[in-house]
Amino acid sequence: MPTYNPPLRDMQFVLHEVLKVSDDFKQIPKHADIDADTINAVLEEGGKFAAEVAFPLNISGDAEGCKIDQTTHAVTTPKGFKEAYKQYIEGGWAALGCAPEFGGQGLPYVVNGSFYEMLNSANQAWTMYPGLTHGAYAALEAHGTPEQQATYLPKMTTGEWTGSMCLTEPHCGTDLGLMRTKAEPQADGTYRITGNKIFISAGEHDMTDNIIHLVLARLPDAPPGIKGVSLFIVPKVLVNKDGSLGERNGIYCGGLEHKMGIHGNATCQMVLDNAVGTMVGQPNKGMQGMFVMMNAARLGVGNQSLGLTEVAYQNALAYAKDRIQMRSLTGPKAKDKPADPIIVHPDVRKMLLTAKAYAEGGRALQAYCSMLLEKEHNHPDEKVRNDSGEMLAMLTPIAKAFLTDNGHIATNACMQVFGGHGFIKEWGMEQFVRDNRINMIYEGTNTIQSLDLLGRKILGNNGATLKKFGKLVGALVAEEGVNEKMAEFINPIAVLGEQMTKFTTEIGFKGFQNPDEVGAAAVDYLRVAGHLVFGYFFARMAQVALRQIAAGNTDPFYVAKLQTARFYFAKLFPETATLMRTARAGSKVLMDTDAVFA
Amino acid sequence: MPTYNPPLRDMQFVLHEVLKVSDDFKQIPKHADIDADTINAVLEEGGKFAAEVAFPLNISGDAEGCKIDQTTHAVTTPKGFKEAYKQYIEGGWAALGCAPEFGGQGLPYVVNGSFYEMLNSANQAWTMYPGLTHGAYAALEAHGTPEQQATYLPKMTTGEWTGSMCLTEPHCGTDLGLMRTKAEPQADGTYRITGNKIFISAGEHDMTDNIIHLVLARLPDAPPGIKGVSLFIVPKVLVNKDGSLGERNGIYCGGLEHKMGIHGNATCQMVLDNAVGTMVGQPNKGMQGMFVMMNAARLGVGNQSLGLTEVAYQNALAYAKDRIQMRSLTGPKAKDKPADPIIVHPDVRKMLLTAKAYAEGGRALQAYCSMLLEKEHNHPDEKVRNDSGEMLAMLTPIAKAFLTDNGHIATNACMQVFGGHGFIKEWGMEQFVRDNRINMIYEGTNTIQSLDLLGRKILGNNGATLKKFGKLVGALVAEEGVNEKMAEFINPIAVLGEQMTKFTTEIGFKGFQNPDEVGAAAVDYLRVAGHLVFGYFFARMAQVALRQIAAGNTDPFYVAKLQTARFYFAKLFPETATLMRTARAGSKVLMDTDAVFA
Repeated sequence: MPTYNPPLRDMQFVLHEVLKVSDDFKQIPKHADIDADTINAVLEEGGKFAAEVAFPLNISGDAEGCKIDQTTHAVTTPKGFKEAYKQYIEGGWAALGCAPEFGGQGLPYVVNGSFYEMLNSANQAWTMYPGLTHGAYAALEAHGTPEQQATYLPKMTTGEWTGSMCLTEPHCGTDLGLMRTKAEPQADGTYRITGNKIFISAGEHDMTDNIIHLVLARLPDAPPGIKGVSLFIVPKVLVNKDGSLGERNGIYCGGLEHKMGIHGNATCQMVLDNAVGTMVGQPNKGMQGMFVMMNAARLGVGNQSLGLTEVAYQNALAYAKDRIQMRSLTGPKAKDKPADPIIVHPDVRKMLLTAKAYAEGGRALQAYCSMLLEKEHNHPDEKVRNDSGEMLAMLTPIAKAFLTDNGHIATNACMQVFGGHGFIKEWGMEQFVRDNRINMIYEGTNTIQSLDLLGRKILGNNGATLKKFGKLVGALVAEEGVNEKMAEFINPIAVLGEQMTKFTTEIGFKGFQNPDEVGAAAVDYLRVAGHLVFGYFFARMAQVALRQIAAGNTDPFYVAKLQTARFYFAKLFPETATLMRTARAGSKVLMDTDAVFA
Repeated sequence: MPTYNPPLRDMQFVLHEVLKVSDDFKQIPKHADIDADTINAVLEEGGKFAAEVAFPLNISGDAEGCKIDQTTHAVTTPKGFKEAYKQYIEGGWAALGCAPEFGGQGLPYVVNGSFYEMLNSANQAWTMYPGLTHGAYAALEAHGTPEQQATYLPKMTTGEWTGSMCLTEPHCGTDLGLMRTKAEPQADGTYRITGNKIFISAGEHDMTDNIIHLVLARLPDAPPGIKGVSLFIVPKVLVNKDGSLGERNGIYCGGLEHKMGIHGNATCQMVLDNAVGTMVGQPNKGMQGMFVMMNAARLGVGNQSLGLTEVAYQNALAYAKDRIQMRSLTGPKAKDKPADPIIVHPDVRKMLLTAKAYAEGGRALQAYCSMLLEKEHNHPDEKVRNDSGEMLAMLTPIAKAFLTDNGHIATNACMQVFGGHGFIKEWGMEQFVRDNRINMIYEGTNTIQSLDLLGRKILGNNGATLKKFGKLVGALVAEEGVNEKMAEFINPIAVLGEQMTKFTTEIGFKGFQNPDEVGAAAVDYLRVAGHLVFGYFFARMAQVALRQIAAGNTDPFYVAKLQTARFYFAKLFPETATLMRTARAGSKVLMDTDAVFA
């Protein structure tokens, strides 16, 4: 059976030593009093919840899955899930990042994000029940009326009610403009909504009395396409004026999907049959609220794969130290044993280090994104708010696609460390692979993320945001350019930064003549951008580690950090060599293929 | 539900137009009469069996899995599996490649191999029941006594009995030298064998009256390690002198593994309790017979992933043509529809072409290996036999590891084409991913394959075999070097061939000083070698296609072949740029990591 230890030391390193989040919080009035000790204490307790409550239900939840009663449409979650959720709300965990005005604890996003990394390590399927609530909460916080907020947000803050996102329909996922669900306005200002939604995570369950569905639908007179989509609140149970629960609403689960992974989470076909809803935001502007949810969800999905990468690494490391098989190529190491532990083999170390490096780079990026979100929402300076929002918009598709693809690589590598045992369910490794697999797909496939990055976030403003990130890289290069010890970490990103600038101009020019050039290059481009970002953070982490060592700090943590950074630049970062080449290879070899696909 | 169409046209192209197998058969007395029509007719019928009998049981077999009766130790295979096997033996399919002296049809290996590609596409889990028999058959054919052969091979030829390979034990998979199963010699020349084996595919089932287990065990006086391992025949039911079935032997299934995939195949924990066995080959030389099985199995595993790559491609292509979602970036293509089929998007084509190119390259390599096996065994010229065996020994780890890793990439890409539907079981795509995942592990993990390739097959003879393959490349380069139309297919392999020669010398030198350098480079090296081999076959395939087109042949098959080859060289082959770099990055960044793994 797998184990899990919350990576508190590495989280503290990223938050306090690399990003120095307290310096940022001092600039943000609502968080001015938050210090490192508070953050660490919360994460320590959060880690206990993850490891002791959520984690023990991971394998059993996968084996059992969810069940539906086709008569009552009630969904039963795996044994223990409901009780764990009760502990979650009793512990106040649902309220961690929510606003004090709705009863929340008002802690920074980065604290909730780090807590969620641990929950995702422990049990992604379970975590999606409370996790989906955050997106719905964010959409209502941003676009709900005061009355809607007063009605729903306090109960979502306590966790008494969960939320869901009802977007996808059988014939449309990526292309929400094709949506058919209809919303008919009523005399009382409400709407009656009818249609079918699919792939609704946590759309129905037995953990709470109510579920607040955020539903995309079309008004009768809506223009065609994505500009005719509106957003509605459709509670599972209608809420009376006094806040008490009223009638059961006409939205129910018509069936559960049988899936590759996240078996413990109910993936629901949702039927809306004349369901009562109220509009969020303006008519036909539903995508605004949807994107608030979606952007939160995309960072959240990256965080899911970060969590799986970490837990897969921990278990592969333990196995590699324990399992003895063959001798080291350089002669016996464990002479008292009939064979050496497999960690003596270079390729086993490579698989382990791949996961470790992707976890550490991902953790830095996730925390950085959470701090940008914080500044975008809560910094007193408008320019900082705007700049932070702009940078976050560019980094979000990278955090989603790069971290989930890396999670795929990492969980598969860690499973491979186990040899044949990796394929066997009881070891838990193959579940990490299966659970991670959906992360590359949902909330916009990774291809969609790459088009969002290259087409919209980079070429859409002629590379202006990329240049701003390039300035961060440039500043680090300028600061450390003469430090010989930093050369191995600095030179690669300096070179790649220049190559990317040139290539971005090139692809912008080609894309102007033929938009398929953008589509052909985007996936490769995103991974190159991901490595530039990871390279930047590994260089910053190495900088901190080198300074600590120079100052006489003997904590082996810093030596380990340098070793991981060296591995990253030597064995993972060079992927960019091929990616730049294949991105440049253009669209012709893809599109001139009519004979192949005839 | 997925569909499957046997790729007969592409098989015919590889066999008759590229490899011109009939020319080889004319040199081999036992196959001198075999012509293309015979081969094609067999494969056409074999394709029908695969598509119509085995394929319809693939998803249901996965959902149902195998069951064990803990009292009787009987294993029940999924509904329909037993009946399909009955059809298989009634159709004479088990006898296809077996020797006429034992009742076989004596067809060339390449015919059986192509038939098995189709079976693997159709249902890998089912195919492993008859498939394991071939390895056991080959070991007995090579190392069994005439009496053993007469007792077992005829029934294995008809398929009335199946075979298994009992190697792995709980504490040893890769490192069979640690094996503990004991064989006590008896006065009558038999042995009594006691021990525990795990991960025994098709170790028990309900399809046949008997199962012929080939078991590795140690004699009481055996030297330690791999040089003290002997091979035994341990039939499930003892066979009387007259060939009739006698007593039940002391070998039974103690439990079934719960696994990520190939649910329809029984992965058995086998208990040997004083079981009666007879020795195959010489005492303490069991690895000789084991390697006959193992080499056959390794080619077979590559063939499994080839099959999964093909079927995943076919279904992703059908979906990409059918599913409409978004408009082409270059403007609407299906103007009569509300959106374009997703095959208009460059990255969707990239995912499809990745699978198609890996299927076509893999098919050529598999067929080439089968022909080498044929010549090794049956060519009248000893030098041809030796050269063929040597080349096959080098190509076998590539066929195993490169094709299964490519299968991982391809099945995941094809699943990704389906978006969210790819994660749902009913579409069948996620099963291809899960089933393929074991192929990267069993019969020697892909890391083990890479060490076998680089350490033993290449550096072990100072690159002599690699040079022989280099001569094939060189001959093609010389032949087509002045043909402008071939330049795009020839130049990349000419360049890579030179780089590899240089790098091989380099790594040999470094490895001499520090063997971990070989371990650190091997996995990357194997993929580079795989691309050299695939590049060579794509160049040969392009050569044939260009000549047909030049001769006025208007079959779009040849245009498609060129388009796929172009894609391969533009988008997949350049992976070698990174792989050469990371292989060169050496072992230090992997091994100087004690602080990381403390």
